[in-house]
Amino acid sequence: MKLMNDLILRAAKGEQIERYPVWLMRQAGRILPEYRAVRATLSGFKELVETPERAAEVTIQPVDILGVDAAIIFSDILVVPEAMGLEYQMIEQKGPWFEKTIRTESDLYLADSHIDVYDRLGYVLEAIKITNKELNGRVPLIGFAGAPWTILCYMVEGKGSKTFSESRKMLYTNPTLAHELLRRITDVTIQYLKAQIEAGAHMVQLFDSWAGILGKEQYAEFGLKYISKIADAITEVPLTVFSKGALTSIEVIAKTNCATIGLDWNMDVVEVRKAIGETRTIQGNLDPCALYSSEKEVERQTINMLDKFTSKRHIVNLGHGVYPDIDPEKVKTFIKTVKNYELRNL
Amino acid sequence: MKLMNDLILRAAKGEQIERYPVWLMRQAGRILPEYRAVRATLSGFKELVETPERAAEVTIQPVDILGVDAAIIFSDILVVPEAMGLEYQMIEQKGPWFEKTIRTESDLYLADSHIDVYDRLGYVLEAIKITNKELNGRVPLIGFAGAPWTILCYMVEGKGSKTFSESRKMLYTNPTLAHELLRRITDVTIQYLKAQIEAGAHMVQLFDSWAGILGKEQYAEFGLKYISKIADAITEVPLTVFSKGALTSIEVIAKTNCATIGLDWNMDVVEVRKAIGETRTIQGNLDPCALYSSEKEVERQTINMLDKFTSKRHIVNLGHGVYPDIDPEKVKTFIKTVKNYELRNL
Repeated sequence: MKLMNDLILRAAKGEQIERYPVWLMRQAGRILPEYRAVRATLSGFKELVETPERAAEVTIQPVDILGVDAAIIFSDILVVPEAMGLEYQMIEQKGPWFEKTIRTESDLYLADSHIDVYDRLGYVLEAIKITNKELNGRVPLIGFAGAPWTILCYMVEGKGSKTFSESRKMLYTNPTLAHELLRRITDVTIQYLKAQIEAGAHMVQLFDSWAGILGKEQYAEFGLKYISKIADAITEVPLTVFSKGALTSIEVIAKTNCATIGLDWNMDVVEVRKAIGETRTIQGNLDPCALYSSEKEVERQTINMLDKFTSKRHIVNLGHGVYPDIDPEKVKTFIKTVKNYELRNL
Repeated sequence: MKLMNDLILRAAKGEQIERYPVWLMRQAGRILPEYRAVRATLSGFKELVETPERAAEVTIQPVDILGVDAAIIFSDILVVPEAMGLEYQMIEQKGPWFEKTIRTESDLYLADSHIDVYDRLGYVLEAIKITNKELNGRVPLIGFAGAPWTILCYMVEGKGSKTFSESRKMLYTNPTLAHELLRRITDVTIQYLKAQIEAGAHMVQLFDSWAGILGKEQYAEFGLKYISKIADAITEVPLTVFSKGALTSIEVIAKTNCATIGLDWNMDVVEVRKAIGETRTIQGNLDPCALYSSEKEVERQTINMLDKFTSKRHIVNLGHGVYPDIDPEKVKTFIKTVKNYELRNL
């Protein structure tokens, strides 16, 4: 199906663009009353993730309501550890929780890499197909997965954590087990992303939410080594790597075969561009809290960010997922400001 | 009283030392069975903080048991917002919780800066006096406070948070209120640190635990501006600034009138030394998770860190508070390794 708006794909590849493309992490979610209405008819977050028709419905909402340049499939990074053998629950107000965790070699049966992703994760692939059918080429659809290090964090810790010290402990006490686990997650992630692309994802993103809790050397060994393998394997569509908090590794990330690097709101666009040159597209990175400001101030902050761009290789986004209590009107102001911004002769 | 071991003070001032001094953040705490025994006789964490004799007792434990080169007074950064008008509770397994929070100007009565710190925080000052009396000059005693930005985070958010989005929201929606609050916290913090020094603290540390959630520009405006004021005011003893996660601001921190800069475990000692030169002492920064390793590996990791030092201006510590489930024997290995490390001709 021909895309009517392929701006984000061209920006990712470094091709010519008329204006910067824009979307928001977590754009399909609690920020929209229309999402909350769908969610209220279901038993919980997981039912929504696992029901392709409804997942497709909330995936498309921000395209209709906010006017973003891309949809991102409504799902969760934790579907992968679940498919491998670790069932999770999403507890209201608390976040994810796993009954079982991986601490020793004898737990490895809970991290099976010989799975059929078409069977175990068929509901995500089905949601991608329905979404594309209903989008009818209006905008590209982004697929995603958690990066191996972040998935290991949840498999070992079993829940969210400020320090993920159980997960980091394994890197010292049993690096062999950590590498085995990361290898398995990487294998499944490659299969899963390829299946998403086959189902219709036009680009894919790796979320490494806990990259920032590792120092540069450990992140190279336990994080980027596996991201790099995924980047080498995903040749069909552009790949975005979003390693939150990993500023000191940004030049190493730029050496992987990714098309786009996501920046969090603390990273300086000008400095990152200086460090990585024109070889990669940058995605981000307005502070999500800027959207709490008045409309005038949202506009000012957005233009302030855009004025820092010295290249066409940019996809506009926030530096983190949009916070659920942001007024959707402010998101519209953000998007409108990006769309009206005149591209200088770069 | 004459100090028998003033190594840490000399290292902070850049004077001659025979070996690197070593202590651990959270050394007085759950890591020691002796601490847990004291704690078990009391109603909770706050009773321990507020009972000078017992606070002094657990402050001295790591000097006796672990052999550290400094004691740090057992207390909490949240005693300051409480003294200003916001009572807190420490909830087991969950962390701090404030019944009231500051969201608008009308809440400012809960942040009173015209308080008598000798009255409201007398229990900390008393604990310092008892500790010094019982230490009898064996090692210096470190006092501390939270940095204004981190204290604002708790006063506004009312509890811990992954994003502190309520606190960051105020920086956009009402920066005037944020500055007023920061000014008040700064005033009280200066009085409080001066009172700690008067009571006998030989050096003081500011903990900016949430520095890393702000970008460089916002941290300059809402964080370092006030830390700098405190550093200007505290001239009596060496001051350490520990801004966790604020690597991009390290050169700005080095321009404040502090003696020592604390590094978290993700910061690279070599790069920071290159950036700040020999003007400041560096404190840190072994990954606390390294202490989960075998004794041989703890030794290897510690020596690996020490080998990176190219200066005498170092105080050895972890890059974060010691985790409560670390084996004290591993801490002893860490300390012993530092004490046995031969200072090259630097």
